[in-house]
Amino acid sequence: MNLDALRQQPGVAAQPPAETTGFVFNHTMLRVKDIAASLDFYTRVLGFRLIDKRDFPEAEFSLYFLACVPEGTQVPEDDAQRRLWMAGIPGVLELTHNHGTETQDGPVYHDGNGDPRGFGHICVSVPELEAACTRFEELGVPFQKRLQDGRMKHIAFIKDPDGYWVEIISNR
Amino acid sequence: MNLDALRQQPGVAAQPPAETTGFVFNHTMLRVKDIAASLDFYTRVLGFRLIDKRDFPEAEFSLYFLACVPEGTQVPEDDAQRRLWMAGIPGVLELTHNHGTETQDGPVYHDGNGDPRGFGHICVSVPELEAACTRFEELGVPFQKRLQDGRMKHIAFIKDPDGYWVEIISNR
Repeated sequence: MNLDALRQQPGVAAQPPAETTGFVFNHTMLRVKDIAASLDFYTRVLGFRLIDKRDFPEAEFSLYFLACVPEGTQVPEDDAQRRLWMAGIPGVLELTHNHGTETQDGPVYHDGNGDPRGFGHICVSVPELEAACTRFEELGVPFQKRLQDGRMKHIAFIKDPDGYWVEIISNR
Repeated sequence: MNLDALRQQPGVAAQPPAETTGFVFNHTMLRVKDIAASLDFYTRVLGFRLIDKRDFPEAEFSLYFLACVPEGTQVPEDDAQRRLWMAGIPGVLELTHNHGTETQDGPVYHDGNGDPRGFGHICVSVPELEAACTRFEELGVPFQKRLQDGRMKHIAFIKDPDGYWVEIISNR
């Protein structure tokens, strides 16, 4: 659909209002049961970097902020500078760890795709789709949908340690 | 927490693996009941632009892709080029509209913050936090948490038409 047709979809504002200049879709937050398992998955399997952690010991939770940082990007060493930098970039993933959930039996959180539905998935795009999926297989990552499954041969879905779906598409 | 300490969190990979170079945290998908209401909210209130729409009439759903496009960014006019460009950027919001949900009574989707919990929120960062929140009030946007509520005076939460929480923070 061309840009003019997109602009004419019911509900779409003709122009982004001037008051929204500088707005950034900064992050998405997911609760996770076992933060070490999630950090392993997002950093080792998907290449995210952990760029901030905030502890709330009284309320018994911690927040972890991750991003796929493009090669050559200098992540600020200074904490305050790094937080400011992080607030201005899109594509941050916030993981909330409620302390102690990791000791519970079975799944703790709801992936949003069974009832009641709502949130569906996050998506990571990759330069080499088939190579990425082969590597996920080799790493033992569970799939919700392999490239060859179903009609859509250009998308796959893997699952993170909590069962959240992560769509994998090509960005080349 | 400094970068060295972050690198030493249990589970964190020492380095992003070479095989993940070029990976992009591209998008987050939410199901919405009334797409016109959601497009109005995300474009008029939050300044997103609608950059792609895909219809699946047989399966009776449509996908809408939005992004907060920085000033000066040229969104490609050509459909194929725009899709390729979109796959390579972080911070895309995908809204799934299952046709007909807009005629149902009451809420259709689950925001993830009542039981069963999982997904928590998305976040938009803004250059002028107080001005942005004042404008949301003037526009009649419902708040989950105003700046002055609770202990954290530097964050607010508004609600989108489905009740999904949208955190608002400063990026200045």
